[in-house]
Amino acid sequence: MTKKVWTAGLAIIGDEILSGRTQDKNIAQIASWLNVQGIRLAEVRIVADVEERIVEAVNALRERYDYCFTTGGIGPTHDDITVDAIASALGVPVIVHPEARAILERYYADKGGLNEGRLRMARVPEGAKLIPNRMSGAPGIRIGNLFLMAGVPHITAGMLDALTGQLEGGRPLVSATVGAFAPESEVAELLRESERAEDGISIGSYPFFKDGRVGANFVVRSEDEDQANRVAASLAGKLSEAGYEPVEGGI
Amino acid sequence: MTKKVWTAGLAIIGDEILSGRTQDKNIAQIASWLNVQGIRLAEVRIVADVEERIVEAVNALRERYDYCFTTGGIGPTHDDITVDAIASALGVPVIVHPEARAILERYYADKGGLNEGRLRMARVPEGAKLIPNRMSGAPGIRIGNLFLMAGVPHITAGMLDALTGQLEGGRPLVSATVGAFAPESEVAELLRESERAEDGISIGSYPFFKDGRVGANFVVRSEDEDQANRVAASLAGKLSEAGYEPVEGGI
Repeated sequence: MTKKVWTAGLAIIGDEILSGRTQDKNIAQIASWLNVQGIRLAEVRIVADVEERIVEAVNALRERYDYCFTTGGIGPTHDDITVDAIASALGVPVIVHPEARAILERYYADKGGLNEGRLRMARVPEGAKLIPNRMSGAPGIRIGNLFLMAGVPHITAGMLDALTGQLEGGRPLVSATVGAFAPESEVAELLRESERAEDGISIGSYPFFKDGRVGANFVVRSEDEDQANRVAASLAGKLSEAGYEPVEGGI
Repeated sequence: MTKKVWTAGLAIIGDEILSGRTQDKNIAQIASWLNVQGIRLAEVRIVADVEERIVEAVNALRERYDYCFTTGGIGPTHDDITVDAIASALGVPVIVHPEARAILERYYADKGGLNEGRLRMARVPEGAKLIPNRMSGAPGIRIGNLFLMAGVPHITAGMLDALTGQLEGGRPLVSATVGAFAPESEVAELLRESERAEDGISIGSYPFFKDGRVGANFVVRSEDEDQANRVAASLAGKLSEAGYEPVEGGI
């Protein structure tokens, strides 16, 4: 029986990441959240605030994967062009969503009311639904397999929370980590053998330097927690037999 | 006169970023370094350790931009397939680079010597040159407009340092930041006007929350430092006139 693996792509829209000014925090956050939903983040593209680039990235990702998420470019300023780009990618017009407008009217009632910039945040591609934003009013947008979210990480987090349990997925991937003062260049063959010994697992190897010594975390991933733990225990035994000092739980 | 803008793409190769386990640090580091070289990071793609995906990303980026950088997948383990994927993308065979082999022999002389895994790190696409790695022996690889670097950020940093001043570029983009307790949704129009008033500048807007109040950093970018400072000063004046409290130098 072939089991479906649910996948997602992520398009990050924003000059601030490409300029190096802002350290991205959304990739790890979204990857971890997707994993809990039983969905694997398969590809990320970071593009500038340029309509042609956004359209290209989103079209590639939404066609290739089960879900496509975007972050950034849905705020009130002139460089926030994600909604227009997505509407263009989907071939639908941009409309003002009545519920989004009502949300923004309430949110800004005691903050000077709606203005042209704020009203921009009620614009959606025709046919879209809203993703609640409990942090700052302006909602995210959901249309087809596309999920448009904020770029500010704590606002994104709130939107992810609102989507928890809403998306069809498979079983989450679980991991078990084996740490050892073992240079990965000495144990590459041992890792390869361990990975090949069973179906349904992968082993990643992530070097570290600690107390002036070289080591690595070896991360066994599987949809089956028992299998992950069993393979990790076996690998830990082999590393210990080969004379490498363990680092309990990795670093 | 049309001025050439030098651009680069970046392909990050690694399941560890896509799984959410590891927080990426290379994007911001490489973006900042490129900027000093007078080169703009124009697009990033993060792909899994799958040859087909690596080939697709690298071919798209190397054709579209002046330079294409990759990080990750050049280590000693079974999932390090970047060199093979790049050779396949370029249509050249993989060879053992004599100088890389000599470097690794010296580096591992007092660490157990070369083995199969370590020798993997001397493999390069035919025609490649090496990028020195003063941190951990195994060199980076340079071929055509492609630069293959390590995934571990402090090793990447050493390779970037070795490349400093080696690449043709334009003038670095400089920035001047204006911080204010101004919600971006109230000043969107003012920003748009400021940006349109001069050629050669862009203004980014990055919201923050401080002491329970909403504000934003407005970042003016230009190749001309005087212009960036002048536009920033003018913007600061307009924000102050409109009654927004400044935040000296931004946050």
